[in-house]
Formats: sequence, C-alpha cells, structure tokens
Amino acid sequence: MEEIRRRVISILVANNAGVLNKVAGLFARRAYNIDSLSVGETENPDTSRMTIVVHADDLTLEQIKNQLAKLIDVIEITVLRTAAAVLREHVLVHVETDGHRADIMFVVDTFRGNVVDISQNALIAELTGSPSKISAFIKNLKPFGIKSLVRTGVTGLQRGDTM
Amino acid sequence: MEEIRRRVISILVANNAGVLNKVAGLFARRAYNIDSLSVGETENPDTSRMTIVVHADDLTLEQIKNQLAKLIDVIEITVLRTAAAVLREHVLVHVETDGHRADIMFVVDTFRGNVVDISQNALIAELTGSPSKISAFIKNLKPFGIKSLVRTGVTGLQRGDTM
Repeated sequence: MEEIRRRVISILVANNAGVLNKVAGLFARRAYNIDSLSVGETENPDTSRMTIVVHADDLTLEQIKNQLAKLIDVIEITVLRTAAAVLREHVLVHVETDGHRADIMFVVDTFRGNVVDISQNALIAELTGSPSKISAFIKNLKPFGIKSLVRTGVTGLQRGDTM
Repeated sequence: MEEIRRRVISILVANNAGVLNKVAGLFARRAYNIDSLSVGETENPDTSRMTIVVHADDLTLEQIKNQLAKLIDVIEITVLRTAAAVLREHVLVHVETDGHRADIMFVVDTFRGNVVDISQNALIAELTGSPSKISAFIKNLKPFGIKSLVRTGVTGLQRGDTM
C-alpha cells in the first residue's frame, strides 16, 4: 500500500531565466500540489537551490524526480529525509498586543523567538525552527489576533555523515 | 531616468492548484528575472503568502503589479519598502572544518548564528537576519570551503505603523 506523506525535495538549478517557471510548470501540469517552495542563490552566483515540499507516495516521488532530471537547468536532486537532514523554517508574525503584551512575550520567550518590530497595538515576532515548531508557535499566537504572517516554507540540508 | 533596483513584492494568494505556476509564468513570459521567491501557508490554510524579489525600474514594477492583480488567485499585493518593512532571510551553510573549527566558530558567534549539525570534518551553521547580513556571513565562511548552502530567499512584513 502506498503511503502519501510529506516529501522535501532539494534541487540545485542553473540560474537561467525561466527555470522557476519550468519547475513550477512541471508540478502544475501533473497536478502535484506544492505545499511550500523557497529558492535563493547559493555561494555560486550561477546556481540557486530550491526546496520544495509536496505530499506524495513513493511512486509519485519517483515520477517527480524523473521529470525534474529531464530539465536541463536542473543540476542535482536530493530528497531530504527527516532523520538525515536539518529541516528548518522561518516565520514573521504580526500580532495584536492590546492588553496582552506580557502574555505574548511569554509565548515568544518560551519558543526562543525574537521581537523585531513594535508599535502601539501590535508587534512583529520572528522564529526559526523545525516546521512543526513554527506551526506550534503560530497556534499559540493565534488567539491574540494575527494581523499577517509570512512563512518561508521548509528549507534544509542533508546532514554531514550522509553527504 | 528610471532606476533599476531590488523590489520586494509580498503577495497573498488563494491556495488553488497551479497558483505558483501562474505567478512564475507571468514573470517568465515577460522575462522579469526572479532573484528569490519563498512561499508558505498563512494562519489561514486557504491562503499562502509569497515573497518575490526582482530587479526592476518603477515602470516595470507597475506592470508586474497590474499583471499580478489580473490573476484571480491573487488576493493582495504589497511592495515592501526597506524603510517601512521588516526584511529577513535564513541560511544553512555546510562548511568544512578540518583544522579551522575555532576560526569558523568565531565567525558564527560574531554573527550570532547557531551550529545545528556537526560531523568529523564539517558543520552546518544557520543564521537569520537581513539579506545583506546573510551575504556577509556567507562571504566570511567561504574561505573555509562551503560544501553546500541553502538560502530561503527574502521574506518580510510591512511594519506596524504603516499597515
């Protein structure tokens, strides 16, 4: 029986115009739904590293890898496995404070987050951690009233011994 | 005279299949080159927030905003201005340590980064900060030998008083 679960795919790509569109198009055409995506340059300005999270079974994951490998701008594909990878995410949360600043600070301190902006009735807190920790942080701040928030999506690298 | 500079666009979108492809396709068709992109769910599971960095002049930025506004899955478009926004980025750097662990730790501590994984001849450090701080961190680690790195791309929120 095939198990559909979260897969984290790390892709090294050449920085050619339209590469993001090619990758996104591949997922869209086959209706593979992307949960999150982040992409930024590497230490080499000619390449970028993308991290894509999808829900897929083993067969679908193989198909995705095969399709990605056919794109000429794709240099390397790695599936990050939770036990053998560092998986992180970053969030900024704009939360209403009126009357609850101390309670909010208790949540932020407990999660070892930081306050990066403050105004009369609101503050912006940030946290970096595992994706599940980020979700728990948001859940704890939600009752105070979230004005807006932005998650980077999951990012990660394979751990040292397995590279 | 038009000035081409970095623009950070924050887009709230409905979580419909293919929305990322539509947005990426819009940039690709018009040859607007995306420097970085990150997208993750918001506190509302029906929406995601994308942060896109492009180099563009004022006219091109207006065109991009107009084109984005035509996509039915796009709910809100905000151009984040450095002075009125919190802009952040996260990086994981896998760096070779042999013989230089103390020097590397000095860099990591100076930037207030964290070591998140360690093996015999390498470690993985992480840092969250302004995009320019992330670039400086990478520059300082590069001489030791970077095995791989992943940047989330710029993420950000408008500051409180201007919302």
